[in-house]
This record gives sequence, structure tokens and C-alpha cells, in this order.
Amino acid sequence: MGFSTNLQGRAAHEALLCRQEAELRLLTTMRGCLVNKIKCDRQYADALASVVVQGRKIEKTEDLVGSLVTQAWKNMLEEIENTAKLIKQNADMVESRSVEKLNSLYAEKRKGMKLYQEEHNRIAAQFSHSNLLQAYLPRWRSWLMSLVVLSSTAEDGEIEVRISVG
Amino acid sequence: MGFSTNLQGRAAHEALLCRQEAELRLLTTMRGCLVNKIKCDRQYADALASVVVQGRKIEKTEDLVGSLVTQAWKNMLEEIENTAKLIKQNADMVESRSVEKLNSLYAEKRKGMKLYQEEHNRIAAQFSHSNLLQAYLPRWRSWLMSLVVLSSTAEDGEIEVRISVG
Repeated sequence: MGFSTNLQGRAAHEALLCRQEAELRLLTTMRGCLVNKIKCDRQYADALASVVVQGRKIEKTEDLVGSLVTQAWKNMLEEIENTAKLIKQNADMVESRSVEKLNSLYAEKRKGMKLYQEEHNRIAAQFSHSNLLQAYLPRWRSWLMSLVVLSSTAEDGEIEVRISVG
Repeated sequence: MGFSTNLQGRAAHEALLCRQEAELRLLTTMRGCLVNKIKCDRQYADALASVVVQGRKIEKTEDLVGSLVTQAWKNMLEEIENTAKLIKQNADMVESRSVEKLNSLYAEKRKGMKLYQEEHNRIAAQFSHSNLLQAYLPRWRSWLMSLVVLSSTAEDGEIEVRISVG
């Protein structure tokens, strides 16, 4: 995979870092919210279950045999109980799957960001090294020229080296 | 509307009273449970709303422009917000309609029970009164016979009344 030419340069590098950090923050927020929602769901499910327990206290009374209202009430309590169970199951599933996936996504993204930074640093170091070479090139060239001049004016076996540093 | 012959007699009367009381207790329990469920729903809706507020804290970051994950997250928060609103609306509706209806049903049933008891007492009083008359009938008959015997044996203008009480 190539790297877009639009993403080269210092500004682009910083924008990429910001983006990656923002994505990590987003993942952290998402995780926090999901964990909170799971907590809400579980509390709601528990509260509904206790409503059902409260509503069933009447059930044992034998004076209500054959009452349609009692039957309807029993059905309603069953529905509430099922809803509570579903909410609890869903919370468990979100916890064991979604939150876990978010965690590994976060770890992966963090690792990717580290890799990107290391790679960037490596390339930047290479780049500055080659820049250094480039900067020394004219000086080396002039030294070479000096040597050539010296060699043409010096006697055999006698080359005085006069290189001015600076 | 007639009154079933199966429901006449002291045992049936007591069974009917028990039934009516049990129905009133059922209505009270139903009302208590509904009120509790409304409370649970409202707390859950509030908790979900605060999850949404927490989840939106990231939204303002401009570093995430064009991010599909952010878009999906926004949509998810909207869904949670809508769910919370629906739960709240439903709780309000259950409170203003169902609980109110249960209240008036309870009042109606209580009134009906009072009416039934009053009617029963009235009929029972009538019944015991006619029973009393029935019990006195033989005695009255014997008094009448005594008067007839006396009138046949007494002189003109002289009737000695000898009625033995007991």
C-alpha cells in the first residue's frame, strides 16, 4: 500500500497524529459509554425483576380462581419478566463481545500509532542524514579541488596539505 | 339481571365477599406494581440520557471529520436517545391512563362491594323479620282459638280473658 503524497510533510504528519489520537479518544469514550449502558441495563433488569416478584405476591390467593383479570395480570408479569431477562442477556452479550472488541480495537490502534511514529522517526532520521550529506557535498567538492590544485603545484613526494576548515 | 341460585346462602355470601376482597387486593397490587414500573422506566430513561451526554462529549472534535466510525457512533447515540424518550413517554402514558383507570376501577369495585353488602343486609333483615312472623304464627293461632272458646262459654257482656303467655 502506498502512502498518499498529500500526507507528506510536517503538517500532514501532525494532522495524522491528531487524527489517531482523536480516534483513540473516541474509542475510549465509546467503551466508557458502553460499560455505563451495560450497568444501566442490568439495574433496569433487576428493578423489573423485583416488580415481577412484587406483582406475584397476590397469585397464591385461591379466591381468584378463574378470574380473567388475574390471568391477564399473570401474562403481563411474564412479559415483564421476559423483557428483564432479554435486557440482561443483551447486556451480558454487549459486555462479552462489543466491549471486548472495542478493547482489542483500541490496543490495535495504539500499536498501529506507535508503529507509525517509529517508522516516521526512522524515515525522518534517514532524511536528515541524507540532508547532512547534501550539505557537506559542496565543501567536500572544494576540498577535492584544493587537493587537485595542490597535487599539480607540489614537487614529487611532497604534498603540503592546506585545508581550511570552516 | 338475576342472581344465580348457586350464590344463595351464607357460604356463598362469604365466598362472594372473599372474592371481592381478593379482587380489590389484586387491583391494589397491580397499581403498586405499575407505579413501581413507571419509576424504574423513568430512572432507566434518565440513565440512558446521561449515557448519551457522556458519549457526545467527543463529538465536537474536528479531528474526526469524515470518520465513518464517528458517524456510526452518532447514530447509535441518537438511537439510545430515542429509546430513552420513548420509555419516558410510555411511562407518562401508563401513569396518566392505566394507573388512573386502575384507580377508578378500584373505587368502582369498592362502591359495588359496599352496595352488595348493604343490599345483603337489607334482604337478610327482611328475611329474619318474615321468619319472626312465621315463628309467632302458631301462637297467634292458639290465642285466636282461646278467644273463640271464651266467647262461646261467656255470658253476654262478660268475657274473661285468660291468655297464658309462654
